[in-house]
Amino acid sequence: MRFRVEAVDAGSKARAATFHTAHGEIRTPVFMPVGTVGSVKAVTQQQLAEDIRAQIILGNTYHLYLRPGTGILQKAGGLHRFNGWSRPLLTDSGGYQVFSLAGNRKIKEEGVVFQSHIDGSRHLFTPENVMDIQRSIGADIIMAFDECTPFPCEYRQARESMELTHRWLDRCVKRLEETVPCYDHPQYLFPIVQGSMYADLRKASAEYVAAKDCEGNAIGGLSVGEPEEVMYEMAQLVCGILPAGKPRYLMGVGTPWNILENIALGVDMFDCVMPTRNGRNGMLFTSRGVINIRNRKWADDFSPVDEETPCFASRLYSKAYLRHLFVSDELLALQLASIHNLCFYLHLVKQAREHILQHDFAGWKDRMVKQMRQRL
Amino acid sequence: MRFRVEAVDAGSKARAATFHTAHGEIRTPVFMPVGTVGSVKAVTQQQLAEDIRAQIILGNTYHLYLRPGTGILQKAGGLHRFNGWSRPLLTDSGGYQVFSLAGNRKIKEEGVVFQSHIDGSRHLFTPENVMDIQRSIGADIIMAFDECTPFPCEYRQARESMELTHRWLDRCVKRLEETVPCYDHPQYLFPIVQGSMYADLRKASAEYVAAKDCEGNAIGGLSVGEPEEVMYEMAQLVCGILPAGKPRYLMGVGTPWNILENIALGVDMFDCVMPTRNGRNGMLFTSRGVINIRNRKWADDFSPVDEETPCFASRLYSKAYLRHLFVSDELLALQLASIHNLCFYLHLVKQAREHILQHDFAGWKDRMVKQMRQRL
Repeated sequence: MRFRVEAVDAGSKARAATFHTAHGEIRTPVFMPVGTVGSVKAVTQQQLAEDIRAQIILGNTYHLYLRPGTGILQKAGGLHRFNGWSRPLLTDSGGYQVFSLAGNRKIKEEGVVFQSHIDGSRHLFTPENVMDIQRSIGADIIMAFDECTPFPCEYRQARESMELTHRWLDRCVKRLEETVPCYDHPQYLFPIVQGSMYADLRKASAEYVAAKDCEGNAIGGLSVGEPEEVMYEMAQLVCGILPAGKPRYLMGVGTPWNILENIALGVDMFDCVMPTRNGRNGMLFTSRGVINIRNRKWADDFSPVDEETPCFASRLYSKAYLRHLFVSDELLALQLASIHNLCFYLHLVKQAREHILQHDFAGWKDRMVKQMRQRL
Repeated sequence: MRFRVEAVDAGSKARAATFHTAHGEIRTPVFMPVGTVGSVKAVTQQQLAEDIRAQIILGNTYHLYLRPGTGILQKAGGLHRFNGWSRPLLTDSGGYQVFSLAGNRKIKEEGVVFQSHIDGSRHLFTPENVMDIQRSIGADIIMAFDECTPFPCEYRQARESMELTHRWLDRCVKRLEETVPCYDHPQYLFPIVQGSMYADLRKASAEYVAAKDCEGNAIGGLSVGEPEEVMYEMAQLVCGILPAGKPRYLMGVGTPWNILENIALGVDMFDCVMPTRNGRNGMLFTSRGVINIRNRKWADDFSPVDEETPCFASRLYSKAYLRHLFVSDELLALQLASIHNLCFYLHLVKQAREHILQHDFAGWKDRMVKQMRQRL
């Protein structure tokens, strides 16, 4: 079995499971660091594997398609060979970046015409060529091409967008059936549930997606500006429909407390740029609360960045030193903050898994959420 | 004995030696990575110790005085405690930065009044307070406060500047005699030979400096724009006068071939920002020549960055991938290039040491200089 649920928490829907890929097992719940152009910003692959202990990382199809391009990736033998990451990889479909980064995009039934954010050149993404691009990249898990609606979004627009996403999904599935992987390992398609914040659309989309019987399923279009309670409501509704025997991936979420709350609702997989992006801005997450390391109060605090996070960046450098590096615009600041935050996120979901296996996740989660939200 | 010469090369003045400090032995010839504000740019202390295997790193007194300031450094218990580097440290005197970075500087007999490059605030450096600042930083090796003349420089200006540097040296020595280290390890003062490109001045300065009988001696004011042959001529002259029983440190030099040529003249210690600064600009040094990694020719070269340099950054990443990171403005590019270049420099001087111990340094040096200067 590709996906095996080992335990479901006694007091919530949280589960601990294992997903098998050709590049190794993924033990869930799992947080996946984002490696936009084939590099998790400011972190080496050695640090990802040995210090952060990432099980799987993401690549962005939109970015990789523009640079280095599929020609180079194919010549290299796929992204695993190109960036030297030998554990599992996931690529998104490029849809989200086309809507958030590219200029002059025009959505048609066929696909999306857009301009590169790098040089303004014109490109077309269709469900078919996005599958082909993801074949060239060669990730273990690949995502269906979808449209992600903004928040807020009128009901009618949300419905039409969802219906387009469903038609595109059918074309993605068909294209994958007609083609074979470029490299000698299988690729698993995850379709994406949309429907904005409308319960009936989310229900319809989850049912449509579940019926495809793919190896895993994803929830898109959340964490786009809606209140947290609405996000949890939608995730709960969708998790109730998506099959329990497949992994559930909530895309682009989120804060450490968002992650724990969604684990409690039955989500297994997460990704977000927050640990790296916010880290580069000096925001550090810890089990006791959030630190703005640029704050003057840390200038003479010689205690470790975070003793409870098990990596060198958290334990061997002081808050005072890291603040000094930020204030002095040193590159090392960005590296240490990114590594600390990623290690914190991964350690958190690892602890979540342990508590699920012990069947005491729910109580632990409530205490942690309260603590982690504090401002230190 | 603090400094023990183990071998002198048969075909040159190159020597292999060991210098003892409270934070460990330094085996020479040695290259010292520059850690400007207490951080070697884009490199973690773990990578410096384990991957690059740096024996000693530098801090810049000017930068550390401005940020984080001596108050924080003293509270931390010195720079070793502040940045977590437990091996030897060397600090320069701040003189060079005052002349190259600070605004509105005014040189007087007492010292130099200058404006901070950060906020324009006014400060005074004197031989006395620069010794006090270096006491607060707590490096194992500290440098005398000197004036570094530009190139070219009129004879009269060079002579007056050298004489001022000598008077300042006397005041540095006196101040150190009147004070004790802030932390529980000794600090060794290295005086600096000046005299621009005038042989008689260099001779006079080397004799003045040698007579101070300090634990080691430095050569300043070279690699400031003069032809390489002039640099070698001056270094040779000065090495002939500075005592053989003390380490000789050539400040701010240089390219890999500059370093080998100066080792052949009897220099033991080197520092330079070139491996890190040029690395951040995409210039990679290798034993076969210099690479501009941004060049299109590397776009589909999937061979390692440099198989002959023994570190992960050189051996586990391809030229094509590193080029992609540079072209995509990824922070990881700066890290990998810095680590590769530093590891290359340190491996080169380690090989130099081995060849000196085998008494076949001179021939090896000539071959390497030729190879390394090529453009790939």
